[in-house]
Amino acid sequence: MTYTPPLREELRGLEPYGAPQLDVPVQLNVNENPYGPSPACVADIAEAVASAAGSLNRYPDREFTELRTALAAYLSRDTEPTRGFAITPDQVWAANGSNEVMLQLLQAFGGPGRTAVSFAPTYSMYPEYARDSMTAWVAGRRETDFGLDLDHARELVEKERPSVVLLPSPNNPTGTALPPEAVTALCEAVGDDGVVVVDEAYGEFRRAGTPSALELLPRHRNLVVSRTMSKAFALAGARLGYLAAAPEICDAIRVVRLPYHLSAVTQAVALAALRHAPELLGRVDELRVERDATVAWLRERGHQVADSDANFVLFGTFPDRHAVWQGLLDQGVLIREVGPDGWLRVSIGTAGEMAAFRQALTAVLAQEASQS
Amino acid sequence: MTYTPPLREELRGLEPYGAPQLDVPVQLNVNENPYGPSPACVADIAEAVASAAGSLNRYPDREFTELRTALAAYLSRDTEPTRGFAITPDQVWAANGSNEVMLQLLQAFGGPGRTAVSFAPTYSMYPEYARDSMTAWVAGRRETDFGLDLDHARELVEKERPSVVLLPSPNNPTGTALPPEAVTALCEAVGDDGVVVVDEAYGEFRRAGTPSALELLPRHRNLVVSRTMSKAFALAGARLGYLAAAPEICDAIRVVRLPYHLSAVTQAVALAALRHAPELLGRVDELRVERDATVAWLRERGHQVADSDANFVLFGTFPDRHAVWQGLLDQGVLIREVGPDGWLRVSIGTAGEMAAFRQALTAVLAQEASQS
Repeated sequence: MTYTPPLREELRGLEPYGAPQLDVPVQLNVNENPYGPSPACVADIAEAVASAAGSLNRYPDREFTELRTALAAYLSRDTEPTRGFAITPDQVWAANGSNEVMLQLLQAFGGPGRTAVSFAPTYSMYPEYARDSMTAWVAGRRETDFGLDLDHARELVEKERPSVVLLPSPNNPTGTALPPEAVTALCEAVGDDGVVVVDEAYGEFRRAGTPSALELLPRHRNLVVSRTMSKAFALAGARLGYLAAAPEICDAIRVVRLPYHLSAVTQAVALAALRHAPELLGRVDELRVERDATVAWLRERGHQVADSDANFVLFGTFPDRHAVWQGLLDQGVLIREVGPDGWLRVSIGTAGEMAAFRQALTAVLAQEASQS
Repeated sequence: MTYTPPLREELRGLEPYGAPQLDVPVQLNVNENPYGPSPACVADIAEAVASAAGSLNRYPDREFTELRTALAAYLSRDTEPTRGFAITPDQVWAANGSNEVMLQLLQAFGGPGRTAVSFAPTYSMYPEYARDSMTAWVAGRRETDFGLDLDHARELVEKERPSVVLLPSPNNPTGTALPPEAVTALCEAVGDDGVVVVDEAYGEFRRAGTPSALELLPRHRNLVVSRTMSKAFALAGARLGYLAAAPEICDAIRVVRLPYHLSAVTQAVALAALRHAPELLGRVDELRVERDATVAWLRERGHQVADSDANFVLFGTFPDRHAVWQGLLDQGVLIREVGPDGWLRVSIGTAGEMAAFRQALTAVLAQEASQS
C-alpha cells in the first residue's frame, strides 16, 4: 500500500527547488564562479579546519564573533574610502547561505498576517522563502528595461504595507543594479513598519561607478544589505551568506536563529577565504571584463541584452527559447532557461568556457536559420 | 532615537535560546563529548576538506548522496545484526544539526492549524521549533520516574490529533529511554495523520539491552528516528543531524529544505568522521562506564538520580538548586540548572572532570549542611 505522509496540504505535489544538475562540460547555469580557490587558499582552508577540528566536540561560538569582525572589515572596504564610515561587527549577521539569511529575515519580520513584496522579474527563491515562513507574497512589476518603476513601487508599498521588501541588486535573473535613489525611496515608503532588503549577492561584480547600498546604511535604519561568499569569493560549496544592517536588526534575528546554526568548520573556512580576498577579487575583475565582452558580443549579433552588473547575462529574445537552450545543451553548454518569456541567462565562465558558449550559440542559431 | 525593528509581536522581548557560555575549567553543562577527535581523525578531516576545497566554487551535491549512503551503513549496525534488515540511503535525511532536522520536520508536517505534542519534562528547544514553524505546541506529562504514562499519552493524542509527536529517547534532560512498546503504541495512536519522531540524539549512550527505535522502522511507516553526530561522534562543532524514516517522509522533507542546505565542507567532515566510527564509539563505551559510576556515586550519597541511558545524569532534589549550581560554578564546575524543580543535570566528562565534579559537590553540600 502506498504511503502518503501527512505533508501540509499546500506543499503536496510541489517539486523541491533547484536547477537541473547535469554533467556537461561547460556549466554556465547557476552563476557559479568558474575559478576554484587557489592552491594557497585551499591550503589555508585545510589548515584552518585542521586547527578547528581538534575541538569539534565542543559547540561552536554561537555569536561567531571573529567571523562577524572579519566580515565587517571586508564590507568596510566599500564604505570607508568613499563614505568615511566603517561597518561594525554588531551590524553584521551570517548564516548558512543567503537563503538561510533570507529565511531568518522573513521569520523575524514576516510571518502569518504579514506581507513580503518584490518586483518581477525577481529571484525565483523569494516566493519559496515567503511560503516557508508563512508570509504573504506580492510581486509588483519592473520596467521593460528591468529597472524599477518608482511610482508603481511606492504605490504598491502604500497598498500592501509590506513588512519586508526584497530588492535584488544586481537583480537575478536580469543583472540590473538599483540606483541609490530607488533604495532610498523604498526605505522611506516602508518606514519603521518594515525592512528593505537589498540583496547584493552579486554586488562585487557591479560595474565601475555603480554604488553599493552599503553606503546608505547610515541614512536608513530599516535597510538591510545582504551579501554572499558564494559568488565573488567562489565559495558556493561552503554556504556562507551574510548581511549588514542596524545592530537592532541583527539582534532581532538572534531570536529566530537556530542555536549554533553556523558550524565551527564553516566559520573557519569563511575566515580563511576572507584572508584571501585580494586574490579572489582579482578573479572577479577578470570575470567583469569577460561579462562586458559577452554583452558586447551578443549585442553585435543583434540580440537584446539586459545591462548587467552581475556575473551573468540575460539575453534574448527567442520565439522558442527552450529549443535554443536544448541546442546549447546538445553541444555541451548548459545555461539557464529563466526570466521573462523568450529570454535566457548565461553565467560568466572562464574565457575558454565563454568561447565555447559563443561557438555553440552561433551554431545553434545558424541551424535554426537554415531550418526556417 | 532608539530603533525598534518590526519584529513579529510574539517574538518581542524573547531571549535567544542558549545555555550560558562561561569560561570555566570543567564544562559539564551542554552534554558535549569531552574527547576531541583523535589526531588521526583530525588529519582525515583536514585531508577531506582540502580535497573538497578545490571545487568550493561549485554548489554542493543537493542530495548529499555519498553522506546518506554512509549514514545508512552506520545505522544499519543497529538493525542488521539484531533484526536482519538494513537502513537504505533513501531512508536517510540530514541537515545542519538535529535542530534543523526538527525544524524541517515541523515545516513539512506541522505548521499553522497543526499541533505538535511531547511529554514534559522534555527537550526545551521543541517549543521553539514549534513556534518558528507556527505549529501549536501541547505538552503532556511524564510519570514521576520520567517514564511515559501510556494511557495519558494515548488520551492526549486522541484529544489533540497531533501531526507531529516528539519523543526524545533517551529523554533530555532526564536520560530516560522509551521501551519499544511505548513507541509502537504512539505510532498506532497517531496513525497516518501524523509522524512520531523518536529523538535519539543520545542513542549511542543507551545501556546494554536498551533497543533503538530504529528496529521498529519496518513496523511503522509514520516513525522517524533522529540522530546527531554531535554527541557520540564528538562533532557538536560540525553540526550534523540526521534521521531515518520511510523514503516517502525523506522525500517530503525535500520540499521545505533550503537548496544546498548541507555544505560540501560539512559533507566532507561528516564522511571523514564516519570512517572513524569504531574509534569514536570506543570513547562512548568509556563514557557509559563513567556515567554508570556517576549514577552509583550519587545514589550512594542519598541523592535521587534518574536512570540514565544518555551522557548526562539528572539528580536532586535540592530545596535551592540554584545555590548548589552556583556553589559548583564557584569551584570551577559548570553544570546545568534544568529539568523539574529541585533537579540538576550534569554531563559526563572525562574521569578527571567527574572527579572534580564529585569533589566540588561534596564540598558545596558540606558547606550547606554546616550553614543550616
